[in-house]
Amino acid sequence: MPNDLQLPFREVTALIRVGEGRFTGDVHPSWTIGGKPNGGYLLAMTAAAATAEIPHPHPIAANAHYVRSPEPGPVEIVAEVLRAGRSASQARARLLQDGHPCIEAVITASTLDPAAVPYWDEGAPTAGDVPFEACVPLPGRTPDGSVTVALMDQVDLRLEPASAGFTAGAPTGHGELRGWLALPGDGAFDPLSLLFAVDAFPPATFDVEFTGWVPTLELTVYVRALPAPGPVRVLQRAQLIDGQRVDEACFVWDRTGRLVAQGTQLAGIRLG
Amino acid sequence: MPNDLQLPFREVTALIRVGEGRFTGDVHPSWTIGGKPNGGYLLAMTAAAATAEIPHPHPIAANAHYVRSPEPGPVEIVAEVLRAGRSASQARARLLQDGHPCIEAVITASTLDPAAVPYWDEGAPTAGDVPFEACVPLPGRTPDGSVTVALMDQVDLRLEPASAGFTAGAPTGHGELRGWLALPGDGAFDPLSLLFAVDAFPPATFDVEFTGWVPTLELTVYVRALPAPGPVRVLQRAQLIDGQRVDEACFVWDRTGRLVAQGTQLAGIRLG
Repeated sequence: MPNDLQLPFREVTALIRVGEGRFTGDVHPSWTIGGKPNGGYLLAMTAAAATAEIPHPHPIAANAHYVRSPEPGPVEIVAEVLRAGRSASQARARLLQDGHPCIEAVITASTLDPAAVPYWDEGAPTAGDVPFEACVPLPGRTPDGSVTVALMDQVDLRLEPASAGFTAGAPTGHGELRGWLALPGDGAFDPLSLLFAVDAFPPATFDVEFTGWVPTLELTVYVRALPAPGPVRVLQRAQLIDGQRVDEACFVWDRTGRLVAQGTQLAGIRLG
Repeated sequence: MPNDLQLPFREVTALIRVGEGRFTGDVHPSWTIGGKPNGGYLLAMTAAAATAEIPHPHPIAANAHYVRSPEPGPVEIVAEVLRAGRSASQARARLLQDGHPCIEAVITASTLDPAAVPYWDEGAPTAGDVPFEACVPLPGRTPDGSVTVALMDQVDLRLEPASAGFTAGAPTGHGELRGWLALPGDGAFDPLSLLFAVDAFPPATFDVEFTGWVPTLELTVYVRALPAPGPVRVLQRAQLIDGQRVDEACFVWDRTGRLVAQGTQLAGIRLG
């Protein structure tokens, strides 16, 4: 779905370095859900600042704690190198708005080897085989019509038909969403945009029971390999809803079926 | 296995507050593997400092990036409050030795409700039913005899017989270890010691192929409920070995079968 208003991921995460470890950026109003910026998008922007300060280009382990949600608009990011090592480096970074901490992130970065091949993957779920073309685009509104998901005009997010029941009020109860994700203009994924990919899907709890906002408290992403160009296949699944919180695990495969990123998140939910 | 040299978890994680957000502690030489302190133990110590500074007592999401391994002995921890909120608070904390950053942690804390009950858990693995008494204590040395695991004289870590094959050179290939963990003196687990529980088991990759040290690069823990007294049941499983790194997922149930903590970690491994 080409769209004149679509902006490349590189553009909506662009930073200006204004001093040692200090950056400014602009949170785009279209990368939002109900007006709130997507959490993976904010982590990618924060990690971009962190990796700019260290000798290794690829975040391989990144976490964000969501302290408060920034509004779309100008933000500041402050990054601090913890160690610049031989095979890996670490940095922490904080995204602030009007002086208030919004995202607290820590990044371990390395250089992913394009020649690496998986050695053993029997503990990971299987990718499935429903092709991109057989999947259904996620509507730009939540099932109850209450929330506009502006982000869906930017990315091409498609659900496997078996996962799309919740959009018609018929969740399966399995708490599992499978589908595909493409960046605007078919932009190729890279380790930074994979940080977004693990938080792009709707809450997998929608496949259990539809609720209002499921705000992410913490997001952890491991980037495991350099992705092939093209859309990525995503599995987002809920594991446990307890004490009005849910954890979700996410798996991201590239077009060739290589597992390239994994994530977990803890979020608030009004159930139980 | 009572042991005169066993020290309570509370004692080996004890901190002295020496200023606002500043603490000193002592990494105990017995909470080590081949002389290196256990990573979950160090996260628990670091998180203890963070939670001491905020109004919420229970870490619900905690991560550590392992910048460098401290030696047993004195350490300093510096904690900084990010936000003290109504239902949750956030802090970051750094463990240093001789002025060098060793652990970089961020904590989201809350107050876990003892009356909460799980609402939905169909996405989590099942706990299994092999009782504590039917499990076999993990030896205090690695299978090749090369590494002394002093930690095994402190905690009572038992593997289900089906998971213990690797100790006799016969891994199953599934990359999955199941068993039980008890603290010294049958001490009750709490949210802080659960941060240790998710990193107490041997690398689940030992059930794929035995290797040397599998150093944790990053550890994330979600504490989901207050545990009942007694030992906890643990499932540690590897998911993907690629590019000389492995991720492992961990699930911890209390004695009553309640899923009380979950973890993921990314570690280095000399395979592939």
